[in-house]
Amino acid sequence: MRTVDRNQKMQVASLIGLSQVEVDYDTIPEVLPNEVLVKVEAVGICGSDIHYYQHGHIGARTVQYPHIQGHEFAGTVVEIGEEVTNFAVGDRVTVEPGVPCRKCEKCRNGKYNLCDKVVFLSTPPHKGALRQYVSHPEDFVFPIPDELTFEEATLAEPLSVAIHALRRANLRPGMRVLITGMGPVGLMCACAARFYNASEIFVTDMVEHKLQVAVGLGATNTVHIPAEEIPKDYFDIVIETSGAKPAIQSGIQALKKGGKLVSIGFPKDAEVPIDLTLMLQRELDLITVYRYANTFPLAITILKELKEVIGTVITSTFELKDISEAMRRRRKRIWIRLKSLFIQINRGGYN
Amino acid sequence: MRTVDRNQKMQVASLIGLSQVEVDYDTIPEVLPNEVLVKVEAVGICGSDIHYYQHGHIGARTVQYPHIQGHEFAGTVVEIGEEVTNFAVGDRVTVEPGVPCRKCEKCRNGKYNLCDKVVFLSTPPHKGALRQYVSHPEDFVFPIPDELTFEEATLAEPLSVAIHALRRANLRPGMRVLITGMGPVGLMCACAARFYNASEIFVTDMVEHKLQVAVGLGATNTVHIPAEEIPKDYFDIVIETSGAKPAIQSGIQALKKGGKLVSIGFPKDAEVPIDLTLMLQRELDLITVYRYANTFPLAITILKELKEVIGTVITSTFELKDISEAMRRRRKRIWIRLKSLFIQINRGGYN
Amino acid sequence: MRTVDRNQKMQVASLIGLSQVEVDYDTIPEVLPNEVLVKVEAVGICGSDIHYYQHGHIGARTVQYPHIQGHEFAGTVVEIGEEVTNFAVGDRVTVEPGVPCRKCEKCRNGKYNLCDKVVFLSTPPHKGALRQYVSHPEDFVFPIPDELTFEEATLAEPLSVAIHALRRANLRPGMRVLITGMGPVGLMCACAARFYNASEIFVTDMVEHKLQVAVGLGATNTVHIPAEEIPKDYFDIVIETSGAKPAIQSGIQALKKGGKLVSIGFPKDAEVPIDLTLMLQRELDLITVYRYANTFPLAITILKELKEVIGTVITSTFELKDISEAMRRRRKRIWIRLKSLFIQINRGGYN
Amino acid sequence: MRTVDRNQKMQVASLIGLSQVEVDYDTIPEVLPNEVLVKVEAVGICGSDIHYYQHGHIGARTVQYPHIQGHEFAGTVVEIGEEVTNFAVGDRVTVEPGVPCRKCEKCRNGKYNLCDKVVFLSTPPHKGALRQYVSHPEDFVFPIPDELTFEEATLAEPLSVAIHALRRANLRPGMRVLITGMGPVGLMCACAARFYNASEIFVTDMVEHKLQVAVGLGATNTVHIPAEEIPKDYFDIVIETSGAKPAIQSGIQALKKGGKLVSIGFPKDAEVPIDLTLMLQRELDLITVYRYANTFPLAITILKELKEVIGTVITSTFELKDISEAMRRRRKRIWIRLKSLFIQINRGGYN
Repeated sequence: MRTVDRNQKMQVASLIGLSQVEVDYDTIPEVLPNEVLVKVEAVGICGSDIHYYQHGHIGARTVQYPHIQGHEFAGTVVEIGEEVTNFAVGDRVTVEPGVPCRKCEKCRNGKYNLCDKVVFLSTPPHKGALRQYVSHPEDFVFPIPDELTFEEATLAEPLSVAIHALRRANLRPGMRVLITGMGPVGLMCACAARFYNASEIFVTDMVEHKLQVAVGLGATNTVHIPAEEIPKDYFDIVIETSGAKPAIQSGIQALKKGGKLVSIGFPKDAEVPIDLTLMLQRELDLITVYRYANTFPLAITILKELKEVIGTVITSTFELKDISEAMRRRRKRIWIRLKSLFIQINRGGYN
Repeated sequence: MRTVDRNQKMQVASLIGLSQVEVDYDTIPEVLPNEVLVKVEAVGICGSDIHYYQHGHIGARTVQYPHIQGHEFAGTVVEIGEEVTNFAVGDRVTVEPGVPCRKCEKCRNGKYNLCDKVVFLSTPPHKGALRQYVSHPEDFVFPIPDELTFEEATLAEPLSVAIHALRRANLRPGMRVLITGMGPVGLMCACAARFYNASEIFVTDMVEHKLQVAVGLGATNTVHIPAEEIPKDYFDIVIETSGAKPAIQSGIQALKKGGKLVSIGFPKDAEVPIDLTLMLQRELDLITVYRYANTFPLAITILKELKEVIGTVITSTFELKDISEAMRRRRKRIWIRLKSLFIQINRGGYN
Repeated sequence: MRTVDRNQKMQVASLIGLSQVEVDYDTIPEVLPNEVLVKVEAVGICGSDIHYYQHGHIGARTVQYPHIQGHEFAGTVVEIGEEVTNFAVGDRVTVEPGVPCRKCEKCRNGKYNLCDKVVFLSTPPHKGALRQYVSHPEDFVFPIPDELTFEEATLAEPLSVAIHALRRANLRPGMRVLITGMGPVGLMCACAARFYNASEIFVTDMVEHKLQVAVGLGATNTVHIPAEEIPKDYFDIVIETSGAKPAIQSGIQALKKGGKLVSIGFPKDAEVPIDLTLMLQRELDLITVYRYANTFPLAITILKELKEVIGTVITSTFELKDISEAMRRRRKRIWIRLKSLFIQINRGGYN
Repeated sequence: MRTVDRNQKMQVASLIGLSQVEVDYDTIPEVLPNEVLVKVEAVGICGSDIHYYQHGHIGARTVQYPHIQGHEFAGTVVEIGEEVTNFAVGDRVTVEPGVPCRKCEKCRNGKYNLCDKVVFLSTPPHKGALRQYVSHPEDFVFPIPDELTFEEATLAEPLSVAIHALRRANLRPGMRVLITGMGPVGLMCACAARFYNASEIFVTDMVEHKLQVAVGLGATNTVHIPAEEIPKDYFDIVIETSGAKPAIQSGIQALKKGGKLVSIGFPKDAEVPIDLTLMLQRELDLITVYRYANTFPLAITILKELKEVIGTVITSTFELKDISEAMRRRRKRIWIRLKSLFIQINRGGYN
């Protein structure tokens, strides 16, 4: 049953050129039989969003203007397709933004994050979530508990990256973990490592404030780089989220024999010098992480468990009409990443 | 019961300086209660032996002259300690050269190749096997079948490296494998990949003859580099045995999504530029291999299975008295590696 | 493009009551955009087909007459849907009969054999393959090499069960395996264990002929039960395909410490007495197998590798018109299982 | 350096016949170079101790009188062997009671709990810990933190069984777990499942008090059997610690597809009827647990983490001189298990 008037248009945040975003209007999407229509309530802005905003591309993927960004989001179900069985109008939900083909060898094996045909919201040419309504297959939509705000629920997406990293590293209770870089993904790794009961969770950053947020989320030790030194030959697992060469290199030295460096952050230059000799002598592995698969239910469980503290990650929210200001602030001051993480869409202005 | 006269001395190949080796005499070792005395019949010379011979060290490990090399060997049991239960005098055996502490966290977990206190024959300061007699704990000695010559049985050691590599990569039947570099370890990887029933086994080298030996051992396709190109985005697993930068780099490009580069060969320079961006985009892993654990029984099974062809790996044998000539030939001509792989100790001269 | 005339009817083998089957006519199915239309050339009859034929149900799943059986089949592509990209008319193929929902937690994790909503050809109420034409999603259709006959290609289905069993047991090269019961699935397990390079493959049966077929496929030792005894405390893995209580019980005793009993065969009575005390003392596991997932490409690889011998599994073929006679012979003499395994549909009579 | 006077004798609790135990005197053991001498401060009495006490055997293992029981213990290091490097006199420690051969295939692979030659304290013919002094290899002795009492530290042994169970089941955060039977091992499983962050931890018992202790340790839901029903088709993992047939059978029904029943408790009769048909239809596994390997450091970490609540497991302590009374109480009233779990050896009476 259609409850949303398709004669009206919805607001969208439209990227119209390099570092140019404005509020525009677009058609409200229909729902396919297996889809739900989500009224978007909150969208987080990720580092990759900022990169597209500033540079117009990531690697070979290029933005065609106008483009809509945003893939970390939560909202309310306002319409359901005729085959939908798991949701009702009014449900509060968060959304897994990448819908794979379900047919290729990767999808069939449960590694759908590697599907070549995935439709990932906000990755060109697919529209993102910085708009009032998104229609999405119900099996990539997840209910959120009342304890979480919409803003907090958007964290299920970056937390999914963290969970996927811990799974790939096979983190087990009692291990010692180092996490380098306390951007949003680094902070989420701290949350996840706490939930997995790592015995020691060291975190590094250049900004004291971020380290303190990490401690609030479960980190046991902080290393304020470059002044303080990372222990060598000490960790079972290092999770590298910054992409910075020194972090990668000190990460390898920080591992004890048989350890694993889990790389999440994209480096500035494609190639990074790796001390392969040391890796061989200690039988170290370099594991990479590309998005995630089958993580959202656990991510929501973790967010709920950490509900008392998870809000500390979110420090600035904007209304959709202020998208241009929000993006500008992120661009100019990298340390504001955390603060400008969320764009809260003005609810009053929607209907 | 002592059957070997300790009043006599045994011959040893003694390294007395950079690129200087001579035949000398040493005391015949006693056997501890859990040890057997092995009369050495054949010793293979490994790349690391040559490196110590030429440079006097590998990394921080430095030779103290005089030193005895050799850790790939086979022979005959001539004495057994009083607690030995698995061997009798006359048994034909090959020897796993590294004896771990059996007590540390790595040993207890079955990863004894990472034991910090391992005593590894031929690694300074421990004496190697280029001598007439070696005493060794019985649980690191393995019987060999009649079908194998002593020379062939020495291959259980480099084949162990290959098996450990395949296990770490979790090679499963039906996968596509690329092996770069057809030195002894590369050839052993081809044997092991065949035994594991990889569906396609591509091998690379600059020397056509080595590629042909690999085909005899089970390789399905050859790539004569640099003239011929390695397929891109094609393999589940790449095993890199050369340590050459181009091999590592083309190895990464050769992997399809979710693939694994298994690194065995030590690079000339400690650091190697790695295309981390590509690795992240395809979720590739870099797995390293340090020696082996729990491989000898399977290695002997594989050698026996390949007994018709395994002899093609061995092309030159020398008597112990000619050790100086043998080492010189290996040093001067790198391509002779394969040909001068084996030093057959003169049996007549022993007793 | 439709190439098959829908004004005509196709022949089907119609189950119309307990142990009653006759040739009937049915509408030729249309193809959905992602489907291909397969002209069925050969169908294997599985033990579960016979069970439905005789008893009208397996557990709570009950046949509604008329019903069409058969889910091991191969044929030729005669039409393709508009979105099909991997097949062309004329391709020789075999078909994975169970199409899962692609959306549930099991499907997303790569364990689609456990999908609650799977549509499995021949499992009531879904029509099976004993008919001239089947339409099927292209991603559950697999090309077969010219070296294999259609009859041989139908073995990809029971061989899939065997592969799934070996994967669940984590069979690795060099292990010792016992396979109890040389029905079709037992024989396929022998093929798979050979391909996985188990070092010893013991097989048991009460019929000498079946044991000899198994030897031809790769078994290394036979145990003609009940006269001959199964070694105790000897195997890493036991694969039980018969469902017989004595086989399960002697299978547990045959395992050495840390071993795994893989159960495939359904027992006559739901409950089976298990020596749990012995299992605990030796830390044995009981692993069960339900159908398969992601096995067909490897199954076809194995069939191709064994093409010289795989034909020995097939001893009787019937034309579709003789379906009644074929089913009757299977029912009366259980040992004929092997002989009446195949019903070759009369090609000349089709068009 | 010897600090304990060997001219004196030590007190031991001596089992001298069926259900007969008395305090006796024995020689104080010497220490080998790699051993420490532990002055025993607390010993827990395990169900297997009681079984030997009452029946004189477990399966084929038979007590030769006199015999000393007890293998869950903690104490103080009072002497160290000359090669000991990790301990000093005065260290508070707990002891892993089973010392494997370190040489067999199981030991080399890290599965030393399956070693055929293990020397396990208290398992006939090896003396147990119900005596004033025990000498033990240092690598099977573990330091305990000040936060834990000696009585609490003895729990590292039964908790090790629980950890081994969770590892074998591959419990991951977010899973639903059922634990049947709240004896000491069941309670320890609840602790471990909490530490591993299972999302739901159901526990069953016939005694309400034990269920409440489990809730204090981390259980989320209780099932007071037989009045209350266990949910069906609901759990990822069931851990069965009672050995009771109904628990095993309802445990299988409680699992959802792909689930695992982990069996720890020995059944009264060797054979147990298992619903293999249901197991096959849902692809369930039955995993068994025999002792543990590589668990003590994590066990101590968990005990420390739960230090506020772990003491609730311990309700009765006796002095060594009252051993006869202690064993009698355990024997007569099974529910007293929990209460009489600990025998605190009279410290004053020792020196």
